[in-house]
Amino acid sequence: MKEFFEVMDIEAVLELAARFRTTDVEAVALQEAPGRVLADDFKAPADIPGFDRATMDGYAVQATATFGAGEGSPAYLTIVGSVGMGQRPDFTVGPGQAARIATGGMLPPGADSVVMVEHAEVLDATTIEVYKSVAPGQHVVTRDEDAAQDHLLLGAGCLLRAQEIGLLAACGVSRINAYKQPRVGILSTGDEVVPVENEPLPGQVRDVNTHTLSALVRRAGGIPMCYGIVPDRYEPLLAACTRAVSETDMVLVSGGSSVGTRDLTMEVLDRLARSHILVHGVSISPGKPTILAQCSQKPFWGLPGHVTSAMVVFIVLVQPFLAQLAGQRPTRSVRTRARLARNLASTQGRTDYVRVRLVNKAGEQWAEPILGASGLIRTMVQADGLLAIDLNCEGLERGAEVDVILFE
Amino acid sequence: MKEFFEVMDIEAVLELAARFRTTDVEAVALQEAPGRVLADDFKAPADIPGFDRATMDGYAVQATATFGAGEGSPAYLTIVGSVGMGQRPDFTVGPGQAARIATGGMLPPGADSVVMVEHAEVLDATTIEVYKSVAPGQHVVTRDEDAAQDHLLLGAGCLLRAQEIGLLAACGVSRINAYKQPRVGILSTGDEVVPVENEPLPGQVRDVNTHTLSALVRRAGGIPMCYGIVPDRYEPLLAACTRAVSETDMVLVSGGSSVGTRDLTMEVLDRLARSHILVHGVSISPGKPTILAQCSQKPFWGLPGHVTSAMVVFIVLVQPFLAQLAGQRPTRSVRTRARLARNLASTQGRTDYVRVRLVNKAGEQWAEPILGASGLIRTMVQADGLLAIDLNCEGLERGAEVDVILFE
Repeated sequence: MKEFFEVMDIEAVLELAARFRTTDVEAVALQEAPGRVLADDFKAPADIPGFDRATMDGYAVQATATFGAGEGSPAYLTIVGSVGMGQRPDFTVGPGQAARIATGGMLPPGADSVVMVEHAEVLDATTIEVYKSVAPGQHVVTRDEDAAQDHLLLGAGCLLRAQEIGLLAACGVSRINAYKQPRVGILSTGDEVVPVENEPLPGQVRDVNTHTLSALVRRAGGIPMCYGIVPDRYEPLLAACTRAVSETDMVLVSGGSSVGTRDLTMEVLDRLARSHILVHGVSISPGKPTILAQCSQKPFWGLPGHVTSAMVVFIVLVQPFLAQLAGQRPTRSVRTRARLARNLASTQGRTDYVRVRLVNKAGEQWAEPILGASGLIRTMVQADGLLAIDLNCEGLERGAEVDVILFE
Repeated sequence: MKEFFEVMDIEAVLELAARFRTTDVEAVALQEAPGRVLADDFKAPADIPGFDRATMDGYAVQATATFGAGEGSPAYLTIVGSVGMGQRPDFTVGPGQAARIATGGMLPPGADSVVMVEHAEVLDATTIEVYKSVAPGQHVVTRDEDAAQDHLLLGAGCLLRAQEIGLLAACGVSRINAYKQPRVGILSTGDEVVPVENEPLPGQVRDVNTHTLSALVRRAGGIPMCYGIVPDRYEPLLAACTRAVSETDMVLVSGGSSVGTRDLTMEVLDRLARSHILVHGVSISPGKPTILAQCSQKPFWGLPGHVTSAMVVFIVLVQPFLAQLAGQRPTRSVRTRARLARNLASTQGRTDYVRVRLVNKAGEQWAEPILGASGLIRTMVQADGLLAIDLNCEGLERGAEVDVILFE
């Protein structure tokens, strides 16, 4: 049946992500929310900080009273009170008056600015000399400067970093609605694959992919659910895939770089309930024999068996689908610029992802390609990121400026 | 007492990290190990993959038998067997012979390369024609190509990403020794600070710093332990700090941007058992009033109260200390190049950290400074990273190429 499929390019595959629904929404305590995705738009419930606040230690004043003040011609102001931290001042600052205030204190009515303590001198219990003028609003944060009531602060789909958590805390939010973390089923196939705990016989290798993909899923905010190693036979593979599809939000079957296993995965996909194949082959290297199907409304990936190929496909293709399931607004992968340390040939008609190590030489960042077959995990261990060589590019020359997608 | 201290520059503060000991070591299951730090050097216990392996579907051959083969002059080879996946072949491939093999299969003795299935044609049950020559080693991964026995694969202090987990799995490791995740005690001070759940009265603000710092600690691989809001008074602050120092590996007291609170923190540090102050003031903006002490051999930070200042100090200074406690080899923060979107003035003698948003314009990446007081959390929400303006620099001009430290 594979003759009906044409190799698709990366962009076309990524567009398919929009077919899939996000996970359900659940309430999450703020302290558990870092790294989660906000499910609702969030508007400021009130002005934040809610009052005019000093940003320096000093004296709350009316700025006009300091205009023209300088070393030779200080302004004389009368102290009318002190602002207690966390207190609303019960007095007013008029023209020619001042109030002691500490950083974070609430400006008394009448005051519009703060003279820094370093720019004033205490003459007696009720008088200060000011040596430097201030402008209205200086050393003050106004009552709605962090957030104005009803203003949209965070959109649905926002990934919550430390600062978004802080903003929610400032607004008095201790529980949010977040999308559930997608559960990702991971299956390894291959008659040569044995569990990590086993001593492989000659011809056997340990199950590297389950562990690698599981770490990638977790890093990307998903919950890995491992279904172990499934033999390269129709019945057990169908049973394991059926179970994984019913219990998770997305399935990754890895293994099957050989034609036989690939055909087997296709056969199983053909029989799975409510399943149809969307992609069979992607113009990407490594990773060409990638399969994507929709099974019971869920994405189902057949990943290459070579660990490096599986990782590249995960980073470039699977992760954006995971973000879609998690309700996350599209974000660009983290990139850095570097200069290429050697010539690289490439085949037109496919996007090549080359593993590179970043090295600093004479203040410049260089990307050194790591050579080695895509079955070698050490090539990923030695690498800091991936360099993409475009579909229409025949290669890159030493010294070329390139974008490197950094591993997270 | 603060007159005895001089403002220190960032490099000098970072050098102090080496004074502090790493956390203890514990055994961790491989599936729990992503993001943890390896405590021991790791050498390959055996050759990996341990046998010569095909990387393509096709025929295992002696390369010499294909030399000179081409479309017009195929080489004729005799099939002497098939390699089963996960099996050790019980036959030998001699000159002029070939064996069917799938990707990942073990090369039979005698064979040194693999002819791709696309480059051969089956003539009858025992004969193939080969249309393209192969070189010795082609389409083969050799027995120690991923790792050679006793070779150092990962050094102590290595942060375990998905690929290091994969390498350990390939070597049969299902449990590792990792440094314990440092516990970080977080205290907020300030009489104006109320818990997030409370409705602040005029003059009060909610406890943003506990939540923000807690999220940063977690993201950096530590375990946040929150001690709540402590009043700005000597006895309760001493009691809370004493408890935090005894229960954690590092303490962060935030708040105290006002001179009074700073002095109070210094007084408490003076009285804490086995405590001495290392740093009082750093040439960094925002964040100058940062305090670092050593208490019972543990780092104790007095962070500025303004949330943005506290975050900048965390990213630039605290995080490297956390990495030191966690046994992690020094790593550089993730950076990207961009062009500055407007002129920026800076004061010589201190390193300025400016919050920036990254914007793509006409294929170029620009860094747009976010303006606003360091008490405003929204300035961090709008930012993608920090731009450092060096100690000796008076400012940067629009269009300058700059390095942006990306938020993780």
